[in-house]
Amino acid sequence: MTDQPRFLIIGAGAIGSFYGALLKRAGCEVSVVLRSDYEVVSQSGFHINSTLGDLSWQPDHVYRDGDTPVAAPDYILLCVKVLPGVDRAALVRPWMGKQTVLVLIENGLDIERELLDAYPDRPLVSCLAFIAVSRVGAGQVNHQAYGQLVMGSFPNGFDEHCQRVSALFKKAGIQVDASEAIVGERWRKCVWNAAFNPLSVLANGADTLTMLDAPGGESLIRALMEEVIVVARADGYELPDTIIEKNIPGTRAMGAYKNSMALDYLNQRPIELDAILGNVVSIANRLQVPVPRLETILAALKMRQPSAG
Amino acid sequence: MTDQPRFLIIGAGAIGSFYGALLKRAGCEVSVVLRSDYEVVSQSGFHINSTLGDLSWQPDHVYRDGDTPVAAPDYILLCVKVLPGVDRAALVRPWMGKQTVLVLIENGLDIERELLDAYPDRPLVSCLAFIAVSRVGAGQVNHQAYGQLVMGSFPNGFDEHCQRVSALFKKAGIQVDASEAIVGERWRKCVWNAAFNPLSVLANGADTLTMLDAPGGESLIRALMEEVIVVARADGYELPDTIIEKNIPGTRAMGAYKNSMALDYLNQRPIELDAILGNVVSIANRLQVPVPRLETILAALKMRQPSAG
Repeated sequence: MTDQPRFLIIGAGAIGSFYGALLKRAGCEVSVVLRSDYEVVSQSGFHINSTLGDLSWQPDHVYRDGDTPVAAPDYILLCVKVLPGVDRAALVRPWMGKQTVLVLIENGLDIERELLDAYPDRPLVSCLAFIAVSRVGAGQVNHQAYGQLVMGSFPNGFDEHCQRVSALFKKAGIQVDASEAIVGERWRKCVWNAAFNPLSVLANGADTLTMLDAPGGESLIRALMEEVIVVARADGYELPDTIIEKNIPGTRAMGAYKNSMALDYLNQRPIELDAILGNVVSIANRLQVPVPRLETILAALKMRQPSAG
Repeated sequence: MTDQPRFLIIGAGAIGSFYGALLKRAGCEVSVVLRSDYEVVSQSGFHINSTLGDLSWQPDHVYRDGDTPVAAPDYILLCVKVLPGVDRAALVRPWMGKQTVLVLIENGLDIERELLDAYPDRPLVSCLAFIAVSRVGAGQVNHQAYGQLVMGSFPNGFDEHCQRVSALFKKAGIQVDASEAIVGERWRKCVWNAAFNPLSVLANGADTLTMLDAPGGESLIRALMEEVIVVARADGYELPDTIIEKNIPGTRAMGAYKNSMALDYLNQRPIELDAILGNVVSIANRLQVPVPRLETILAALKMRQPSAG
């Protein structure tokens, strides 16, 4: 690795371009692979209005599918949505050098497996982002709040690659929580996401308070969280008993809030149904843990989009 | 009662005007209370294109809310949708004579109670209609198929009023199945309706085959039917074990079909959520029967329409 670590971001949407800006600020070489925003970003870079100040930046290289990279990246930062039909292993293949390390900043549970299967000898840095950020136009991003990462090696540990990447993000000024058990952290985030996100889509994009305050709403959300906790336990990740008791008032305290999946649905973008819910149900079925409520929500959503399988 | 039984239909939409036509054909005096279609029907009656032939008819009297009936009816035929905010006991009150018998042709479970509570000394004839009929314009109705009634006294038995009304409908040419346990018949119909109808709304108006063939779809629908059967059993109505095994292939044999609640949803009409599902869940809760899947669907739909409580 050179003194100036070389990053390539695949999926430089709101999240990718935000964390790219931080890496740039930390002194890295940062390039991107783009589709729809290629022309705009090639010409004038990313414009990022952030609570951390103006984070606008120009990538060192802007690539398109089919281009050959000037040099193999030390790190590929993968920030694409986890959707059926999106082959993430194939997306990264043309850009992988012999030493390239994969860094995922993506949502969901059990989303690392397909990359580990494709690149079994490669270290995998798995990150969860706690952030409110949205793309408001081509190359235009609005960062509203937060930015903390939870990071660990997949499936466990916190290796030298985590240490290096973590140090860079910290240098740029954000909090990185090191985790020796990143899968457990994904389960923990899943307690909220699997309960609120797909249900908000069934509720046609309802906000959190509307969901909690509907007849039977809070009771259903608590029961969904409990189902996730029981599956996590069967999978070997014991979550604290207090997580539901913290999550509910914590959510109420945020006020009426439309979660990212509700917004994707309302804006007619695809939703990460399998990453957030389908994989939980698959693990539950494999471990023979009954999850009648999670299954009901998953099947109802699959009925809406039969083509998505 | 006169030789010519006097009927008044409240809620003369597709179902009300169809069964009114049959009573007219059987020689009864048949009047209606109307709102939106008052002008049209006063002038030119109902136009009903039916598989039984042309069933167009002119009511003997067309009333509006606030009118005084020429004579108290022997029977009020109540065919309104069972919706929160629709006070059916109040709707019938101005038209009730001292001897008037209430006849309900309405969908759902436990929908007789509010009328029995309001008129505890009045006989109640409770009917389920198995019919495909739709309103296609003001006073314009299209009858596509079926028409059979299942009839009984509420809460049980088959009294003299049932016998008289049943004889009139039979005289007009439709099948009437007498039941000594109409509540059990409502449970039986509920097995299909509570499973398919609200779920089709969550699935944004999906047809039956799309629902059955989605991943996890048939398995969810069978589990929902099983939950209804267990509640019915706890409520004292043992349904045959074979009902699910008959319902699933029977539904497949009908081909892709949008049920009435799916159509109501797609046409932005209110849905009979409590009559079809909410009351099942209430009875389950009272009898402490777990219905996690039914509760999930109910709560998700309540999140969509918080104002409907």
